[in-house]
Amino acid sequence: MDIATVSFEPDGRTVRALVGIAILEVAKTAGIGIRSECFGKGLCGKCKVIVKNRNALSELTQNEIERLSMSEIRSGYRLACQAKVLKDTVITIPAETRLSSRKIEISGSEKLVKVDPLVTKVHVTLPVPTLSDARADYERFLGALSKLIDVNEVEVDHLLLKQLPDVIRHSNFDVSVTIWGNQKVISIELADSLNEIFGFAIDIGTSKIVGYLVDLVNGNILDIASIENPQIIYGEDIMTRITFGMAKPKNLKMLHKLLVNAVNKIIYETCLRANIKPNRIYEIVAVGNTAMHHFFLGLQPMYTALSPYTPVIKRQVNIRARELNININPSGIITVLPIIAGFVGADAVADVLATGMYDSTELSLLVDVGTNTEIFVGNSRDLLSCSCASGPAFEGMHIKCGMKAVTGAIEKVNIHSDFTVEYETIGDEKPVGLCGSAVIDIIAEMFKQGIIDYTGKFNRNIKTSRLRRSNGETEFVIAWKHETATGNAITVTQKDIHEVQLAKAAIYAGCSILFKKKGINEKQLDKILVAGSFGNYINPENAVNIGLLPDVPKDKIIFVGNTAIMGAKMALLSKEIRKKADEISRKVRYLELATDPNFKEEFLAATFIPHEDLNRFPSIKSFCIRRDS
Amino acid sequence: MDIATVSFEPDGRTVRALVGIAILEVAKTAGIGIRSECFGKGLCGKCKVIVKNRNALSELTQNEIERLSMSEIRSGYRLACQAKVLKDTVITIPAETRLSSRKIEISGSEKLVKVDPLVTKVHVTLPVPTLSDARADYERFLGALSKLIDVNEVEVDHLLLKQLPDVIRHSNFDVSVTIWGNQKVISIELADSLNEIFGFAIDIGTSKIVGYLVDLVNGNILDIASIENPQIIYGEDIMTRITFGMAKPKNLKMLHKLLVNAVNKIIYETCLRANIKPNRIYEIVAVGNTAMHHFFLGLQPMYTALSPYTPVIKRQVNIRARELNININPSGIITVLPIIAGFVGADAVADVLATGMYDSTELSLLVDVGTNTEIFVGNSRDLLSCSCASGPAFEGMHIKCGMKAVTGAIEKVNIHSDFTVEYETIGDEKPVGLCGSAVIDIIAEMFKQGIIDYTGKFNRNIKTSRLRRSNGETEFVIAWKHETATGNAITVTQKDIHEVQLAKAAIYAGCSILFKKKGINEKQLDKILVAGSFGNYINPENAVNIGLLPDVPKDKIIFVGNTAIMGAKMALLSKEIRKKADEISRKVRYLELATDPNFKEEFLAATFIPHEDLNRFPSIKSFCIRRDS
Repeated sequence: MDIATVSFEPDGRTVRALVGIAILEVAKTAGIGIRSECFGKGLCGKCKVIVKNRNALSELTQNEIERLSMSEIRSGYRLACQAKVLKDTVITIPAETRLSSRKIEISGSEKLVKVDPLVTKVHVTLPVPTLSDARADYERFLGALSKLIDVNEVEVDHLLLKQLPDVIRHSNFDVSVTIWGNQKVISIELADSLNEIFGFAIDIGTSKIVGYLVDLVNGNILDIASIENPQIIYGEDIMTRITFGMAKPKNLKMLHKLLVNAVNKIIYETCLRANIKPNRIYEIVAVGNTAMHHFFLGLQPMYTALSPYTPVIKRQVNIRARELNININPSGIITVLPIIAGFVGADAVADVLATGMYDSTELSLLVDVGTNTEIFVGNSRDLLSCSCASGPAFEGMHIKCGMKAVTGAIEKVNIHSDFTVEYETIGDEKPVGLCGSAVIDIIAEMFKQGIIDYTGKFNRNIKTSRLRRSNGETEFVIAWKHETATGNAITVTQKDIHEVQLAKAAIYAGCSILFKKKGINEKQLDKILVAGSFGNYINPENAVNIGLLPDVPKDKIIFVGNTAIMGAKMALLSKEIRKKADEISRKVRYLELATDPNFKEEFLAATFIPHEDLNRFPSIKSFCIRRDS
Repeated sequence: MDIATVSFEPDGRTVRALVGIAILEVAKTAGIGIRSECFGKGLCGKCKVIVKNRNALSELTQNEIERLSMSEIRSGYRLACQAKVLKDTVITIPAETRLSSRKIEISGSEKLVKVDPLVTKVHVTLPVPTLSDARADYERFLGALSKLIDVNEVEVDHLLLKQLPDVIRHSNFDVSVTIWGNQKVISIELADSLNEIFGFAIDIGTSKIVGYLVDLVNGNILDIASIENPQIIYGEDIMTRITFGMAKPKNLKMLHKLLVNAVNKIIYETCLRANIKPNRIYEIVAVGNTAMHHFFLGLQPMYTALSPYTPVIKRQVNIRARELNININPSGIITVLPIIAGFVGADAVADVLATGMYDSTELSLLVDVGTNTEIFVGNSRDLLSCSCASGPAFEGMHIKCGMKAVTGAIEKVNIHSDFTVEYETIGDEKPVGLCGSAVIDIIAEMFKQGIIDYTGKFNRNIKTSRLRRSNGETEFVIAWKHETATGNAITVTQKDIHEVQLAKAAIYAGCSILFKKKGINEKQLDKILVAGSFGNYINPENAVNIGLLPDVPKDKIIFVGNTAIMGAKMALLSKEIRKKADEISRKVRYLELATDPNFKEEFLAATFIPHEDLNRFPSIKSFCIRRDS
């Protein structure tokens, strides 16, 4: 078998690969993430890479000819899933193809929490064995521990039992004991580590995993890390991954293993930076949507994707770390917060915890926008939730020039009455594509300037070269090709607009049905909390103007950022919050939109911009009527 | 590296081995057990094997020259630990060297037990999920289960959680659920296996492991198997193994693994014969002395061997089978019964259970003779125990021609007044050596015929060619060399007699001190129960006459056989018995002989035959006085 050397730019990473292997696979072995939404079947066209030495790769396939433009082919673009390595070569991965260096949202309006974790460490002095007190080590240990806590419920791990005789003797019968929830002994160590009690909070997102290393003595965050969710190589969206996982038990194990490895990686990184032994991390609190929750625990998530959408387990799960091969203290506990339903996961529970809406008498609406958008309405007395399949448009997917909120993404857009466009990018770099917040701005601004009408159709009568036909499709140019990092224009197509209309209609319809079920209307809302991966920013006015959010005074709309990780951290720090998570899971009512007879009608009415029924949008009703008259 | 082919006879097993490896090691890889008490250092001389093609092995070592007789060397005898393979060869393993085909004691006076095991299987029908009842699988499962049992304490294994979604769907939501102690769910299976509930009882002895496959529905024993304790290759006695285990963590793991493999082997065998899936075995109840208990659980037993002799854990241990890599249902429970003290193990608890002495108002003495002899005295109101280091003489070890109770062992001996000897062997084969019961008979008979005096010394004045000098030592011939299977005479030496005196003195002194502590004397005893590995037989009269057991009417002495496996089986079958085991462990008082000021004096007085104080042996007092006058 012949071997070729492949270097990836701009990473400068070089690997050796078998001749005949596709670039996409080679990149995986190099640890480089390349976008792909079609399992490498040459269909999605997202895995574009650039090669200089063309004859180092196999010939163009029919799929590539269909999916690459002539100018791209001339510039050496190839689809990484189609092009196979023949000789030593250098491959450049353009920014828009890359799955890395995502920005982390570490904002979030976190509630103050009294530090009172489930994990505690106590100092235990055991009487030294003598011929007249020759009790067994474990009974000696429990006897000493019983002077500090009620040991009736205490359960010692088999692993600790193996270590017990040596530990107590090496420490001269003077040990520090870590206990979880007064029930499980997690560690028995030399008595010199009483103040070293660490925990880890993780939010396992579909796209990225964020972790906080937390000092459980004072509640301080010691370090933060994030990593691409490595499952992305098996599909950007959850459904693709679940489908992949269903195919073979091996696949499900692989998806599980990828998450475990990623979590281990950020634990290792943060511990290294904070100079902390991973062995002194005694608990992890993890959250994620139901699919990630299942993948992380190695549970089959396929039935959450099939009607009637049943998850495997709803309640909080607590497992010894070594059962999941997570590299903290092997007897430590991995807690995964409870979920509410198949599409309202532990991350949503964490959202509710972090926003404090469960404790507040104020009537709040919480919208966590994603491929599935979770919606909560209510207050401390009663909370109602639902989930709607809004699609990934607001995460920058299924949009021609869409991208995640990474460096180079356009995040704010302004369109003037002369149709000139102003934009800002993340990191002030040359633009690469559009992230979710830009997509909202663009639809709102195009509607405001009459570039599209209330059905979302382009107005062919306006005079600007930005509105043009390309490959048989009408599109509006946001950035000309000379302005961009890729050398291609960034545009919005009719199909993109339609995609956004479907997304925002699903979300708005979900809100409407919850309001109806609760017998309230938007005027009664004290606030709207918006979470999601649009980017780091959202323009509340535009979100209302396109009919994504109900029409409330703009100062009531608060972008709360990544509340999931905040909620996870709060649960890590406090017994009481942990109990509250269980309560939320049990008490929050879940409404299955699929069974609601009004959903279809509500959804169709909400596909209009802002809505078929303008009375629901009084703040722009007169503008709409004036413009269309 | 050169390879040679080595065949073992009479097994006919052939393995390939590296040139330069000792026969002892090669035999291990062939799965053939060879006796060895010195770690293969060439010191014990027990590992004799025979080779025909002498130049296929390395040259005789100094150790071999010292330990083999000239006639053995001429016959091709070698020590397996010293002789290294040079070429292809055939090795014959003589019967006395072999560690296999031990007889199993399956007798035992077992109490009748009501079948009421901790493991139960219930039929659970789950409501089929619908859009209006889309509960999670686990909550759906618990909901259905709660109609049958109190589920508040129920804990489901992570492994089962992984299987849950598929199992309930493949079974059309109609499953059978196995639960342990109303607490732990062990299996969720298709509802066609409601009557298949099996358990396994094991006694892990220092020399052999005995297992019963038990039907937990009716309590029937379905199959029985026994296997050599494979740890024997690391020493025949416990102390040698503990010392080996202490040397390196790797060694301890190896000793653990050997037990696990052996247990798996007999599980596999019995299941095969009984045509039962090992997956349908849901619990194992194991007993063993404290060292075996520790080795089996992978716990460090070294501190049980060092003053003040503390074990790692006293109470009952329950572990999921897969944590110990035991091949029954992976979520099944391995229960190891509690111990009483460092030298009074779970096997002794099982003895007490099986003999029923804990339930009886009769005053009983239970003596389980072994290298460590456990002694219990008392009744249902109070039980007192101790352990004494009696040495392995009654197991046929540390005796020149001693051997375990296997085929070819002499088990009964009669010496006539003309000094002729009558004997019986196990399996009616030509004699190979002496097992424990023969050793008792021989001392008693020699004493009766005046061959030895009350100090154990040979009487040089008697006229018989059986009393002779050999290699500078006086010995009495039990079987002439032409009578034996080995071609060597079977004799008893002065050293052997001394060894037995020490052993019986330790046991008798232990009994005396327990009597004193309890304020009773032997006349008050209702019975003496004798357990141990003497063989399948013991002559009660002789046991009293040598001063091993207190002088009581012989019909009060009952040989109870292997009560440990019986006790394990009873505990497997009954919740109540299980509780009783815990009670025994907690309530039986343990007396540490090492701390008793009278022990040394009692011990010395008991080294005489039958005892220094003949008033303690009224039944033979007049005979003794008459003979010695």
